[in-house]
Amino acid sequence: MPDRAAVQKTIDSYLAAFTAGDREAWLDCFADDAWIEDPVGTPRRTGRREIGKFWDESHELPEGIELRSLGLTNVIGAEAAFTMQARPNLGGEVYVLDVIDVMTFDDDARITTMRAFFDPATMRPAED
Amino acid sequence: MPDRAAVQKTIDSYLAAFTAGDREAWLDCFADDAWIEDPVGTPRRTGRREIGKFWDESHELPEGIELRSLGLTNVIGAEAAFTMQARPNLGGEVYVLDVIDVMTFDDDARITTMRAFFDPATMRPAED
Repeated sequence: MPDRAAVQKTIDSYLAAFTAGDREAWLDCFADDAWIEDPVGTPRRTGRREIGKFWDESHELPEGIELRSLGLTNVIGAEAAFTMQARPNLGGEVYVLDVIDVMTFDDDARITTMRAFFDPATMRPAED
Repeated sequence: MPDRAAVQKTIDSYLAAFTAGDREAWLDCFADDAWIEDPVGTPRRTGRREIGKFWDESHELPEGIELRSLGLTNVIGAEAAFTMQARPNLGGEVYVLDVIDVMTFDDDARITTMRAFFDPATMRPAED
């Protein structure tokens, strides 16, 4: 089982790499056979190639997407749930979307599964 | 698939009944064969009798436990994740614990599974 600090570090790297637009550093947060379901209810993407394709798709429209922690991160053993805000920059206008991510991790604290709970209909212009 | 308003209503009832100390109304939020894992990593309790036993155990020490929404509830199809604060009253002193609950629902918007992400070590005296 990974230790709590290592899991927290992976989550921090995941948010920071996405925000920095660093595709390879973000993909390095995942185990080789990881899958993501983003948002919940959509087909899962498995492995670096498919997850990389998800990255490419989500970066087609926005000029950049900040992922900002909303302050609550609960790590339990090899699992974690945390709140964050996705802040895409669309044509110079920043929008926000509140997300709850649920993840599992391998012994090296790499992400093995990720499910993102959010409702695209709640996206709204940023006020801060 | 349950509709969003019905799922939100179940979540509201779940928080309100627990806060009110209404054991039967809280148990009515669950489907007959529902299971809970609270916190994540502990053995699952299945069905009304075992979930009722969980209620009894969690009410052994506190004089009451308020469950207060922390404002983020994301419902997607038959699933939801939301943030809340558990506020047990222990000998006249209120403590707080920040929780992320992840639930699934049946077509009647009754809870079929519930997993509670929290770390008991983060419990602290309430400041409000």
